[in-house]
Amino acid sequence: MILDKINMPQDLQALSKEELNTLADEMREVIIKKVNTTGGHMGPNLGIIEATIALHYVFNSPVDKFVFDVSHQCYPHKIITGRKEGFTNPDKYLEYTGYTAPEESEHDLFKVGHTSTSVSLAVGVAKARDLRGGKENVVAIIGDGSLSGGEAYEGLNNAAILGSNIIIVVNDNDMSIAENYGGLYKNLKQLRETKGMDSCNFFKALGFDYCYVEEGNNIKKLIEAFNRYKDVSHPAVVHIHTKKGNGLKVAEINKEAFHWIMPGTLDAKESENVIVTEDYNSITNEFLLNSVEKDSSVVVINAGTPGVFGFTKEFRTKLGENYVDVGIAEEHAVASSSALAKSGAKPVFAVMSSFIQRTYDQMSQDLCLNNSPVTMLVYWGGISSADATHLCVFDIPLISNIPNMVYLAPTCKEEYIAMLNWSLKQTKHPVAIRVPAGSLITRGVTDNTDYSVLNKYKVEKSGEKVAIMGLGTFYELAEEVKQELKSVMGIDATLINPKFITGIDEELLENLKQNHELVITLEDGVLDGGFGEKIARFYGNSDMKVLNYGAKKEFTDRVSIDELYKRYHLTKELICEDVMKVMKKSVNYL
Amino acid sequence: MILDKINMPQDLQALSKEELNTLADEMREVIIKKVNTTGGHMGPNLGIIEATIALHYVFNSPVDKFVFDVSHQCYPHKIITGRKEGFTNPDKYLEYTGYTAPEESEHDLFKVGHTSTSVSLAVGVAKARDLRGGKENVVAIIGDGSLSGGEAYEGLNNAAILGSNIIIVVNDNDMSIAENYGGLYKNLKQLRETKGMDSCNFFKALGFDYCYVEEGNNIKKLIEAFNRYKDVSHPAVVHIHTKKGNGLKVAEINKEAFHWIMPGTLDAKESENVIVTEDYNSITNEFLLNSVEKDSSVVVINAGTPGVFGFTKEFRTKLGENYVDVGIAEEHAVASSSALAKSGAKPVFAVMSSFIQRTYDQMSQDLCLNNSPVTMLVYWGGISSADATHLCVFDIPLISNIPNMVYLAPTCKEEYIAMLNWSLKQTKHPVAIRVPAGSLITRGVTDNTDYSVLNKYKVEKSGEKVAIMGLGTFYELAEEVKQELKSVMGIDATLINPKFITGIDEELLENLKQNHELVITLEDGVLDGGFGEKIARFYGNSDMKVLNYGAKKEFTDRVSIDELYKRYHLTKELICEDVMKVMKKSVNYL
Repeated sequence: MILDKINMPQDLQALSKEELNTLADEMREVIIKKVNTTGGHMGPNLGIIEATIALHYVFNSPVDKFVFDVSHQCYPHKIITGRKEGFTNPDKYLEYTGYTAPEESEHDLFKVGHTSTSVSLAVGVAKARDLRGGKENVVAIIGDGSLSGGEAYEGLNNAAILGSNIIIVVNDNDMSIAENYGGLYKNLKQLRETKGMDSCNFFKALGFDYCYVEEGNNIKKLIEAFNRYKDVSHPAVVHIHTKKGNGLKVAEINKEAFHWIMPGTLDAKESENVIVTEDYNSITNEFLLNSVEKDSSVVVINAGTPGVFGFTKEFRTKLGENYVDVGIAEEHAVASSSALAKSGAKPVFAVMSSFIQRTYDQMSQDLCLNNSPVTMLVYWGGISSADATHLCVFDIPLISNIPNMVYLAPTCKEEYIAMLNWSLKQTKHPVAIRVPAGSLITRGVTDNTDYSVLNKYKVEKSGEKVAIMGLGTFYELAEEVKQELKSVMGIDATLINPKFITGIDEELLENLKQNHELVITLEDGVLDGGFGEKIARFYGNSDMKVLNYGAKKEFTDRVSIDELYKRYHLTKELICEDVMKVMKKSVNYL
Repeated sequence: MILDKINMPQDLQALSKEELNTLADEMREVIIKKVNTTGGHMGPNLGIIEATIALHYVFNSPVDKFVFDVSHQCYPHKIITGRKEGFTNPDKYLEYTGYTAPEESEHDLFKVGHTSTSVSLAVGVAKARDLRGGKENVVAIIGDGSLSGGEAYEGLNNAAILGSNIIIVVNDNDMSIAENYGGLYKNLKQLRETKGMDSCNFFKALGFDYCYVEEGNNIKKLIEAFNRYKDVSHPAVVHIHTKKGNGLKVAEINKEAFHWIMPGTLDAKESENVIVTEDYNSITNEFLLNSVEKDSSVVVINAGTPGVFGFTKEFRTKLGENYVDVGIAEEHAVASSSALAKSGAKPVFAVMSSFIQRTYDQMSQDLCLNNSPVTMLVYWGGISSADATHLCVFDIPLISNIPNMVYLAPTCKEEYIAMLNWSLKQTKHPVAIRVPAGSLITRGVTDNTDYSVLNKYKVEKSGEKVAIMGLGTFYELAEEVKQELKSVMGIDATLINPKFITGIDEELLENLKQNHELVITLEDGVLDGGFGEKIARFYGNSDMKVLNYGAKKEFTDRVSIDELYKRYHLTKELICEDVMKVMKKSVNYL
């Protein structure tokens, strides 16, 4: 195999053009096998194998610098830069992350997993080079989908006036994760259709030297183009037309489904594929379809990641004009949602916890300062074994410290539905709902709570001495802790379902002082700036003890959930031990 | 006066074209007088008087909808829409805010004060109209400077595919607050020079119908252009070339200085102007100039608001290649700073507290996850009587709950300089420094603290029973509280200067338990998610009482600082009263 000979980029130089093509085929094979085994990004990586070989053939990494946008297309780069075992040896399949990671290799400049940042990063790299008088090439590789994000534009706007070498490879496969949305994409289409000759050219308008490569999966053509721009003394865009999923028929056809796949997807038989079970995604989608049917002013909005929410093509088609994908543009999503709400429509913005981070100012200024009745559905919030770039533990501090926002944490299907119904009906507050992660919990009792009475916690079981507040997905843990306290310490604890992340139920908290000496808070997110600290602050001037449980302020990287729960004392046993320590100190108890 | 006849937009219809011109002159006069009396945005408002008259002449507000970007150019609009007394009657000069405000008028759709949001908002307004089958015009008015922000691009990208009426008036005066930066501005220049005929056209590339109006301060020409686009059935850009500060010579010449002026600027004699006193801006600038002189890898970055930091033209020129204005593009500023730092340069990003909100995800992902040694200088942080759109109380929760970040709060010149020196020297952490707002405090003793020992608070005075933590600018209040406790209660309190916002000095906090029963925290920002709550959490399992002081989670709007301090109990007397209540309850004390 040619691949055997490739241990670092420089090894490519020994290969003939034909061998480079063979290498691409071999890399394709190992990537398909590896990704189908472990799961991961399939389409983006298959589409960029040839370009990655050409880049490493022409440029001299790590002296020349590559910055991969979102970096979910970095597998070929990893293979070429000394990490091929992670793809050829099943025992090492999990050794490397799915994103660029400087701790793995000097060929990776940044830890990256969010979109639209590569040009900004490359501008910084290039500016540092210019300040020290360096001459190396700086190359950003950005997909057409990523160009919908505002930061990509900010980066381009600044790259264009850098006055020195920066090469932006636009990897145009005519797809985002799903289809592209935006005026830019008509221009890209026009450029593809005219082989880059159209005089109306987004990149040229921003001031870039520009060239178009129609055969973006042809190594020879790519090498020619990159060679033309190597050592260029000004900002340039090389627009390459690639095929997402290239070389794997099913991925070429089902581009969206094969953007990221679960393990074993290629082996699954048709019949195995479809086991319809109710989950939080399915009940959300059912609710949204019904809402749109009843009220044509309901609009479902998302920012380029419909798959996260199970917004299938069928679902999107059914919603029709009441579905808006804004591209990967969360800022616009929030601001335009606010305007929709202020204009009498009922926007529902679905967003993953990790990506809500991309739009704080719009939540504060456009949404909450204007008090617009938008419904935001925040998915996947909680402690997980995710890659460091996709942690979902920061949304509570991010969202809940903004004035006027009502952030709700349902603990089961019935509460979630009641909150959805209330949120879409009311017109007074921006509302965010933390869609529970994990499997559906149903209590079988309709929730008739009037959520317009804000910050009213629910006492699920009344007890004494200890009160346990289980927020959202951690309500079940609270139930377990209650049982544990009973069996180990004989304490009949009070069980509270706070429901409201954004406010304090002062009356209830005041009342607890009468026959409780300890309040425990459990939240599925980072403690710093979160829910529990507000409870601790409330009780600061009193004798009430408070124990806050949640995640530590840290970036974890693919750490197992069991290890994290242990680390954060998020098990009934560890919590019970902590309680014993506190209660022993307590005079009242002994 | 013609102005006497104008009480609502429809009154314009009765005027001849000549009278409209006279009206513009009269409006100019009252705006100049009012702004020179109260302070405010001068240049932007003078430049858009004619366009505002033309807009209200052609369109039918509030049926047709206007969305003003950043809205610091809304004074002419306010005059025409029933609020002229706020400009003609000195007694009512302060009655209206300097920004659009729905509570003032149905002609204002949104409370807006941050840049680059108008197109997104207009898209939402237009989409809501389309869903209910409306036919009114939706018009966004956005300056060329605001087009550097990523959200403006996200908005344009989505507006272009709306498929229905949306008119974007690009108010191009060839200026941001200071000069413009970015590739786009070459294109705008080209378009101005070719009277809009250049085939390379940023707006056309995004898919807009486009027209150019060279005489953007000519009411007749503007009316013609707007009439052509009224009721248009597709997205359109009307690019008007205006003059910032139009009609006030000194403002036309000194565009940057007259963007926003202090009261009385027009009356100030040369000699009165320049009293050079040392303040936090001047010592920062001196530090930065010295740093660049000693080390050419130091880069000073800001996002379009150099005036906030006193980055004068002279200062910028001196810095030369080591100064970067990225346009109003905070996301790019942070990401490119991270890359600069990773590439061996020493970036210093200066930003106003209110605008750091525009870049959370880049701080989290690009900066802190990559642990890049960037120095961020956060200006104006603290409770103030500012407009609701420019509050600076949210930066502590925003910044300090991100892992790896080191956020420092100096209390005086010497500490600030020591922190700056350390931050630029070290290579391990992203560091933010909260530049003290207000007048310079100097203690006359060089600070030799080694800030690489993180989270080490300083005990300034050792006492007992009560410990007071005065964070940053509130250190002085802490000193006052200490004296008050002594004189009123006879308590000799411990005085602590935490310095580190991002972490807990566990050893010190543990030690305080020995002879203290109450810890008071004082922070100049919102309590929710802030510094004090972390102290409350730490002591949750102990007998230590904690009282947290800071701002309530709310949007305040031009409320006097005295009233806010009273509301939040931020005076030595009110705090002392609270302490007495808590201490009376305490068994140990009685």
